[in-house]
Amino acid sequence: MKTLITNSYILDMVGDEPNIRKADILIENNKIARIDKEIIEEVDEKINAKNMLVMPGLINTHTHLAMSIFRGYKDDRKLMDWLENAIFPVEDKLKPEDIYWNSYLSCLEMIKSGTTTCNDMYFGMNKAIEAIEVTGLRAIVAWSITDDSIRDKIEKTREYAKRYNDDENSRITVFTSPHAPYSCNPDTIKLCVDLAKELKTGLHIHLAETLNEVKIVKDRYGKSATEYLADLDVFDVPVVLAHGIYISEKDIKILKDHNIRGGISHNPISNCKLSSGICDVVNLRKNEINVGLGTDGIGSTTTLDMFEEMKTAAYLQKVNTMEPTAIKAYDILKMSTIEGAKVLGLENQIGTIEEGKKADLIFIKTDKLHLCPENDICANIVYSANGSDVDTVMIDGKIIMQNRKMRNINEREVMKQVKKIAKRLCK
Amino acid sequence: MKTLITNSYILDMVGDEPNIRKADILIENNKIARIDKEIIEEVDEKINAKNMLVMPGLINTHTHLAMSIFRGYKDDRKLMDWLENAIFPVEDKLKPEDIYWNSYLSCLEMIKSGTTTCNDMYFGMNKAIEAIEVTGLRAIVAWSITDDSIRDKIEKTREYAKRYNDDENSRITVFTSPHAPYSCNPDTIKLCVDLAKELKTGLHIHLAETLNEVKIVKDRYGKSATEYLADLDVFDVPVVLAHGIYISEKDIKILKDHNIRGGISHNPISNCKLSSGICDVVNLRKNEINVGLGTDGIGSTTTLDMFEEMKTAAYLQKVNTMEPTAIKAYDILKMSTIEGAKVLGLENQIGTIEEGKKADLIFIKTDKLHLCPENDICANIVYSANGSDVDTVMIDGKIIMQNRKMRNINEREVMKQVKKIAKRLCK
Repeated sequence: MKTLITNSYILDMVGDEPNIRKADILIENNKIARIDKEIIEEVDEKINAKNMLVMPGLINTHTHLAMSIFRGYKDDRKLMDWLENAIFPVEDKLKPEDIYWNSYLSCLEMIKSGTTTCNDMYFGMNKAIEAIEVTGLRAIVAWSITDDSIRDKIEKTREYAKRYNDDENSRITVFTSPHAPYSCNPDTIKLCVDLAKELKTGLHIHLAETLNEVKIVKDRYGKSATEYLADLDVFDVPVVLAHGIYISEKDIKILKDHNIRGGISHNPISNCKLSSGICDVVNLRKNEINVGLGTDGIGSTTTLDMFEEMKTAAYLQKVNTMEPTAIKAYDILKMSTIEGAKVLGLENQIGTIEEGKKADLIFIKTDKLHLCPENDICANIVYSANGSDVDTVMIDGKIIMQNRKMRNINEREVMKQVKKIAKRLCK
Repeated sequence: MKTLITNSYILDMVGDEPNIRKADILIENNKIARIDKEIIEEVDEKINAKNMLVMPGLINTHTHLAMSIFRGYKDDRKLMDWLENAIFPVEDKLKPEDIYWNSYLSCLEMIKSGTTTCNDMYFGMNKAIEAIEVTGLRAIVAWSITDDSIRDKIEKTREYAKRYNDDENSRITVFTSPHAPYSCNPDTIKLCVDLAKELKTGLHIHLAETLNEVKIVKDRYGKSATEYLADLDVFDVPVVLAHGIYISEKDIKILKDHNIRGGISHNPISNCKLSSGICDVVNLRKNEINVGLGTDGIGSTTTLDMFEEMKTAAYLQKVNTMEPTAIKAYDILKMSTIEGAKVLGLENQIGTIEEGKKADLIFIKTDKLHLCPENDICANIVYSANGSDVDTVMIDGKIIMQNRKMRNINEREVMKQVKKIAKRLCK
């Protein structure tokens, strides 16, 4: 299968400064085969990218796909009230089929707003994987493990990792995932680390999200959550550390001394909506720790549109540091593409537009009032575009959406199913 | 002229809690004539609002329309560097025709994202007024006055106020506008106050936007900016105070003691992007001071989409107070509708859907993935919708946009003109 993209302006996200150039892109099967000024080639499909900016697909480094039914559900509440009186009672009732449809909706919502890869952690992941398969998304998936029902989840992780992880053309990679330092005792975390080592895969965990977590871990173990993980050898394996708000200078030194592979998933909207706090992204990046962007699950956020996370990330850092130059539009684009890929350990496959990389591309329509004039295209994309400016999405060399229409997917049916689940569970 | 809106779900923004109900709306000329379950009436035009939520048009309480060419221009810089090396040199070269086209683009961008009223302050306002007239927007306009070229601007204010302010069917109202406490000496401000009293109109001014301003005013006059204005009788007239970040408890008491008419225009994105600080909206509202939302001009923000301001306002207050219940979705909707109207002194005309009010309505398409399911429509609108979910816009009883298409306006021509101006001035 060959696809040729013509008339495109490419923002390749390769260098330290934005590089936008006019070029054609030839896709062969799932990879970028050639980028050149004018490519003449016999192909199966041609795409005219006139008036579009082509850039790498966005990478959402922390999600809980199946939570889409919680959109707006008992919103604007205190965290524990919300969890105990809204989320947990419904989660207890989620059936496998519910997880499938809820995840399906999240996948579509992400694709429609330009996300091509996500990093998902939840339960019942076999059904989330089915939804990921059918929508065409690329994903890292993990069964979230707490101190109970460990054995079953570890077996599932092993089974699915064997199915997906060794195939270099697989869109799915299975990670291990102890839920969080406050919800996992040392034995549970060690089991997950050992499993990650056995499967030669990564580990996805919440870290230092709230002041309450800081206190619990300190009271229980006499150390910070980061120290707690370090002492359990978590940083021997590639990690995705979700949130990372309460990370001290001492903690940063620990991460640096361990030369951690992976990095932090920054979830600015969730952190605001739940009043968790502001992650010091500027300082983490100054310390050469990779920081990607994530949405968290619907409920703690209300939208999976990564353009919203980009804006909020920039706004928070600028106002938090009281320094407008603290983070720039291009930094934010890096965090949502190549730096996100590094956080997930996928930087050799995705995150930039380069020959040999997987063809995960998004096409942003730029001839719009709110993107005019084009003094600085990166600033326009980060600070003014939103998910609905994404016209076309290619994942793994396949066109999934074009002219904002999903190919081979019935959006209405998915919405209908999710509404039905919400009606049953969220009354 | 009679228009009938059928099949609509109305969010009227009247009460203290959200009230969403199915009803028809009859518009006669520029007013809402009737709201009822089912209206049978001979009309000129019928609009089927199936799958749409009809709510009052959004009110942008602080803009500089003509700044649209500055989108992304020399972005991510320190304030004084940006002003002195990017903005001022270009502003010096703006011709009247430039102000017309730049303002035109801003008006269209606002309408397309659901804003029906704005409060504009700049120079060359006669050309901004032309753009407002032709696009159909509702607006308060003011010539921004600093210590130089006072006489001409005062004359223009008087001339246009006489033309527009006494006509109850005018979409345009003229305010007076001393630029800011740090840029206007006491004589200038007094002149503006006297003019507002003479014309029986309001006064629009920047207030307490940056720490630098606080320092300048304190050094120069030995008091806070709010005290400075109070001592010059500014609060005798209705005011729109833009930004209001550095307002102390003592300042709040001054505002309350003066029983101020109008209120604060909160511009969260501008305040973040320029690292100005976070306005304590929660405290202001607790003190019963009206707070509306505004975008500020393009340059300090990059988008005029009020949905972005709504989100950012909510996120900032929640994380700033570390209290997720500090401000709720419906509070944010009030700030962008009826509370914004109160800030502008237009609460008897706009801001809610009620019989007798001017027909400024927006129709939001709700059958979309990112707005599904509908556990809480207000939360969905504030935290997940964006400007491009606005399908139809009616201002002053006239359909300006339908199915996202502007009636009688050539968007491409406007973009072409603004690009030409940017090419000439922003190289």
